[in-house]
Amino acid sequence: MDFSSFLTSLGTSFIIFIVLMLLFAWISTRQGNAVVYYPNRILKGLEPWEGGSRTRNPFAWIREALSSSEQNVISMSGIDTAVYFVFLSTVLGILVLSGIVLLPALLPVAATDDGVKKHSKTASNVTFSDLDKLSMANIEEKSPRLWAFVITTYWVSVVTYFLSWKAYKHVSALRANALMSPEVKPEQFAVLVRDLPDVTQGQTRKEQVDSYFKSLYAETFYRSMVVTNNKEVDKIWGELEGYKKKLAHAEAIYAESQKKGSSAGTRPTNKTGFLGLCGKKVDSIEYYTEKINELTQKLEAEQKVTLREKQQRSALVFFTSRVTAASAAQSLHAQMVDRWTVTEAPEPRQLVWSNLSIKFFERIIRQYIIYIVVFLTIVFFMIPIGFISALTTLANLKKYLPFLKPIVKLDAIRTVLEAYLPQLALIIFLALLPKFLLFLSKTEGIPSGSHVVRAASGKYFYFTVFNVFIGVTVGATLFSTFKSIEKDPNSIFDLLAKSLPGSATFFLTFVALKFFVGYGLELSRIVPLIIYHLKRKYLCKTEAELKEAWFPGDLGYATRFPGDMLILTIVLCYSVIAPVIIPFGVLYFALGWLILRNQALKVYVPAYESYGKMWPHMHTRVIGALLLYQATMLGYFGVMKFYYTPILIPLPILSLIFAYVCRQKFYKAFSHTALEVACQELKETPQMEQIFKSYIPPSLCSEKQEDEQFEDALSQASRTGSFV
Amino acid sequence: MDFSSFLTSLGTSFIIFIVLMLLFAWISTRQGNAVVYYPNRILKGLEPWEGGSRTRNPFAWIREALSSSEQNVISMSGIDTAVYFVFLSTVLGILVLSGIVLLPALLPVAATDDGVKKHSKTASNVTFSDLDKLSMANIEEKSPRLWAFVITTYWVSVVTYFLSWKAYKHVSALRANALMSPEVKPEQFAVLVRDLPDVTQGQTRKEQVDSYFKSLYAETFYRSMVVTNNKEVDKIWGELEGYKKKLAHAEAIYAESQKKGSSAGTRPTNKTGFLGLCGKKVDSIEYYTEKINELTQKLEAEQKVTLREKQQRSALVFFTSRVTAASAAQSLHAQMVDRWTVTEAPEPRQLVWSNLSIKFFERIIRQYIIYIVVFLTIVFFMIPIGFISALTTLANLKKYLPFLKPIVKLDAIRTVLEAYLPQLALIIFLALLPKFLLFLSKTEGIPSGSHVVRAASGKYFYFTVFNVFIGVTVGATLFSTFKSIEKDPNSIFDLLAKSLPGSATFFLTFVALKFFVGYGLELSRIVPLIIYHLKRKYLCKTEAELKEAWFPGDLGYATRFPGDMLILTIVLCYSVIAPVIIPFGVLYFALGWLILRNQALKVYVPAYESYGKMWPHMHTRVIGALLLYQATMLGYFGVMKFYYTPILIPLPILSLIFAYVCRQKFYKAFSHTALEVACQELKETPQMEQIFKSYIPPSLCSEKQEDEQFEDALSQASRTGSFV
Repeated sequence: MDFSSFLTSLGTSFIIFIVLMLLFAWISTRQGNAVVYYPNRILKGLEPWEGGSRTRNPFAWIREALSSSEQNVISMSGIDTAVYFVFLSTVLGILVLSGIVLLPALLPVAATDDGVKKHSKTASNVTFSDLDKLSMANIEEKSPRLWAFVITTYWVSVVTYFLSWKAYKHVSALRANALMSPEVKPEQFAVLVRDLPDVTQGQTRKEQVDSYFKSLYAETFYRSMVVTNNKEVDKIWGELEGYKKKLAHAEAIYAESQKKGSSAGTRPTNKTGFLGLCGKKVDSIEYYTEKINELTQKLEAEQKVTLREKQQRSALVFFTSRVTAASAAQSLHAQMVDRWTVTEAPEPRQLVWSNLSIKFFERIIRQYIIYIVVFLTIVFFMIPIGFISALTTLANLKKYLPFLKPIVKLDAIRTVLEAYLPQLALIIFLALLPKFLLFLSKTEGIPSGSHVVRAASGKYFYFTVFNVFIGVTVGATLFSTFKSIEKDPNSIFDLLAKSLPGSATFFLTFVALKFFVGYGLELSRIVPLIIYHLKRKYLCKTEAELKEAWFPGDLGYATRFPGDMLILTIVLCYSVIAPVIIPFGVLYFALGWLILRNQALKVYVPAYESYGKMWPHMHTRVIGALLLYQATMLGYFGVMKFYYTPILIPLPILSLIFAYVCRQKFYKAFSHTALEVACQELKETPQMEQIFKSYIPPSLCSEKQEDEQFEDALSQASRTGSFV
Repeated sequence: MDFSSFLTSLGTSFIIFIVLMLLFAWISTRQGNAVVYYPNRILKGLEPWEGGSRTRNPFAWIREALSSSEQNVISMSGIDTAVYFVFLSTVLGILVLSGIVLLPALLPVAATDDGVKKHSKTASNVTFSDLDKLSMANIEEKSPRLWAFVITTYWVSVVTYFLSWKAYKHVSALRANALMSPEVKPEQFAVLVRDLPDVTQGQTRKEQVDSYFKSLYAETFYRSMVVTNNKEVDKIWGELEGYKKKLAHAEAIYAESQKKGSSAGTRPTNKTGFLGLCGKKVDSIEYYTEKINELTQKLEAEQKVTLREKQQRSALVFFTSRVTAASAAQSLHAQMVDRWTVTEAPEPRQLVWSNLSIKFFERIIRQYIIYIVVFLTIVFFMIPIGFISALTTLANLKKYLPFLKPIVKLDAIRTVLEAYLPQLALIIFLALLPKFLLFLSKTEGIPSGSHVVRAASGKYFYFTVFNVFIGVTVGATLFSTFKSIEKDPNSIFDLLAKSLPGSATFFLTFVALKFFVGYGLELSRIVPLIIYHLKRKYLCKTEAELKEAWFPGDLGYATRFPGDMLILTIVLCYSVIAPVIIPFGVLYFALGWLILRNQALKVYVPAYESYGKMWPHMHTRVIGALLLYQATMLGYFGVMKFYYTPILIPLPILSLIFAYVCRQKFYKAFSHTALEVACQELKETPQMEQIFKSYIPPSLCSEKQEDEQFEDALSQASRTGSFV
């Protein structure tokens, strides 16, 4: 890619960004769009705009984002989002501090040498852009100028250690503060108990759990909830809810038609067959009402069966004290580790019920199998894609699908197909990948939703770094190597050295595209806006349907964070080789911080709260990226035939020690709740009844039954009546 | 070594063993020796012999050892000793079950082939003994007979998995039962708290600890004991105790002389200078009494200073409930892991006071430094030894120490020196090694004595396996290889294959020597007997001194277990290659079991009780020996050019999975106390006062001061008086 095409690409991206931003400024102030641009505020019962005036400055969001405090973010979007901003600002800090030193120091050093010219004369088949003159590739081999690059390599590492240490401390305090909060949070009073042993004759599961925990925690034990297999009841409940929505929809249509036309109105109808397309035509309202009655009875019966007969080998146990719950979750209860496994209970909303009853060793086996599957997916990812790409070339298509021939002959279509067909498989696969990884992580048997997301995010990170970063760099090198390797096997290293700065321009464009277009789309929310308006006009009839149409979802950690990490990895690895990449990295994270701050405050609604448990993953991966950078630099200095390259060897060792020390010092407080944190005073006496109820899944919440009756069923209360 | 010399060596060892055993049968029945042969029974207040009759069968000890139950061992010598017997009987079981299959299956297969003859014809410089005809070396290369060896390789592994799994389960139950015991054990009510943060202004250390634990465990917190730096006070106390002993000794002498001679008697005297050899002559009784008075005052002053001013950053905290103590030891208390580290308290008698105040990261750093030192010691162990051996050859001695010449010229002395001088350095070093490793382990900063022993034992195991087993095998091969390697580099593997069975004979002799002579000496206790009688006759005057002279010490895990493991490793590795080694292994462990059973029941007095925490180490090392065996077999089958060698590859993988599963299932219950175990009812209400006092080190136990006064000082009880 030459310099002018790079500038063109940059310019185009920038224009798209400006357009999207102006669009946002204009559209977001219109009242009808408030639910798309301020859903988080609306759901929290706040005015869309602060002050409430309609004639507000279209760029006020920038000021608001900049002036918002961490506390604002926590109150609007939770600890997890605040931790994500700590990550963004730490990375931003690393890049800014690196840039301040690297740009003024390295650019003049590189620009005044003339390694590129010399190379060009000797090896004419390798092309160099003007940008390369500003990179390390312009330094002659063995030149003493390389000392400047060695020193800056150290500088970047030291900055990273310093800022990530500070960030870890800060996040640890954030987590502690959140867990100390005087407000009652159900998950702080509960533990999850798995791998219950067989019950003895004449004892119910509930009695078993109750007597076990009563004997250990006589004073703070409240009660227990045996986990049931809810698959069947969930299905019936889902159907019932579907019919309820349909009934509301039909009633809304009927009411509308009454208003509009004849006073009687037209009663909506539907067909009972497949997808409502065939079958008998019936009156919708009557049909749905009938179905609802039928299903309600079925649900009640199934609820009873579930509570009585589908009890599993796990339970939730509730305590009246936070300290007991925190300490119980950390203690070994049974002499055999694979019995009575006690862990922290996740929030009710993120409990993965179907995973709760998986046995101890089955969980471990599942985990390893998944690891192997993910490893294979990452390493051999390119093979099926390449295979599909090869199959879907035009020539092959014509051969195997001859009926396409007339279409393919059209010039315009052919051009488009030729350009995009090979990438099509890749794009589809990449789009499905996060879902696939989430599915895999869930299959591991993890009991909490946020943990599933963390696990998937980790897998996605390895995938992107391996396939995008290493794939592009090494791939490009391998490709050009195969051609010349026959002539001179020693040229491999020369080529690698040349390919690194060569790919730099590619990655520069990639980063620029990512932040201008990506964040432009993020801020303007064009796609959700269009979808919302379409749904509102043609589909939605009830309030609930409307809300569903604009409900924004959460920030989407699982894919967003690995994307950021890819950018960080690229920028770090090229920071010393081609320092011009640093300003782009700074722009990416600065823009990201600004725009996501707006989105976190006003748009996205968090789906769970894990009190910053994501942070250790983030920190480890930042250090991982640093290690990759240090290894790259070691290799690159070797390629430059710099005699003092071994002076860089302490760096990776330092990084490993740093990671080890951080893990030792901070990690345990993230996997458990420290007791001194849990023992803070509460604002009010916890309503244990309410805490208990919050864990009952909606499909088991009976509407008709009296509460007490219901409890009785849920508790399977004891044939003997000795435990209540 | 040829066959006849092997038989000679075996015969000699056997005769020594028989002589020692007869000696034991004769000597041990004499009343005066009871304290040497039955000290454990005497100290427990039991009759030396069951039934008490003097005319007992001299071989009754065999019947008694065989009929003793595990419960007897536990009550006489504790869980740790019982666990050691589980190890012995498990290994015995593995070898017996292996032998039952391997001996009848492999010996005929090997004996009827004639690989040795063929080899002898082609390579005449390698010598083979008759024993080799019974080993795998007698099988021709690529022979289908090797299948028998493959199958038995699997058999040995499966037997090991099965028995060690059963043993782990059994030991886990032993440990649980011991911890469940209704008797009050101080260490179950205490935790050790390290890494206390700085105290705030105006707060004492004691207040800090008390308020912290009171807020967490309001109902079960009893009180705390701040750890002090006892170096000075220990020193004074040691001196004082020394003088007290000397005074008692002098008084006994005086009393004796009064009885014997003139009614006034001669008052003993001593010199005050270096070692009592020079200086002023004084009356001993007066001098010691004076010294004692002086030191008692000094001790009291020092005790006060220690309790008040030498408080360290750690404390012992006592709870009134075993469950709380067990759960506190497993829970994270502070948000930062390197503050308020809470662990199980060791028994009072095995608390390593000087290590208690080492900081979190210092402990980790010390540990890694020690690991590096041990690694270097193990790997480069032969270098200084070889160097010293070379220096101490006769020729060199004559050269550097010319004054020795006349002695060296004597024929008899020269022969002895020539035979033993090179080994002398080795013997001295090997004798000092366990002490050195114990010292290193203590330096790691481990707070409990039993843990120090475990750590030292692990290091010693690696040392013996690496230097004795691998050293001898590979060393011998290397030596013979260097000679022929110049002619044909491909002969290296042939030589290795031949050297393995060659070393087998060496190891056979080694094992035989070890059990016949080693266990003979162990049983007959010749050395302690002689020392005791010498001391009794010439040195001891008081009862206390006599008791000190016969006090037997403990079983000496730290060196005994690695010795056993070395034998097991050798026998396992050669089990398939030369199955004749198995009966020797069986004899070793059977004799060991029998003789140590006697010693455990009657002689040794355990120095600590760790409730079987040694077992996971033992188990891991047994699996480690199995892995070494499997790797050896893989290599050896390769050398035999057996096409189906890869059929053995699943074995090491299986072993790793087995080790992983065992660790997952059992290990946590060994590093912590399971709560269901700790929650068993106690026989009586714990006397908290007594539990607390048992942790006060003897040097801080004041005799004169009133208890309450004393407590006050120890507790530094609170200027404000708010905590008592």
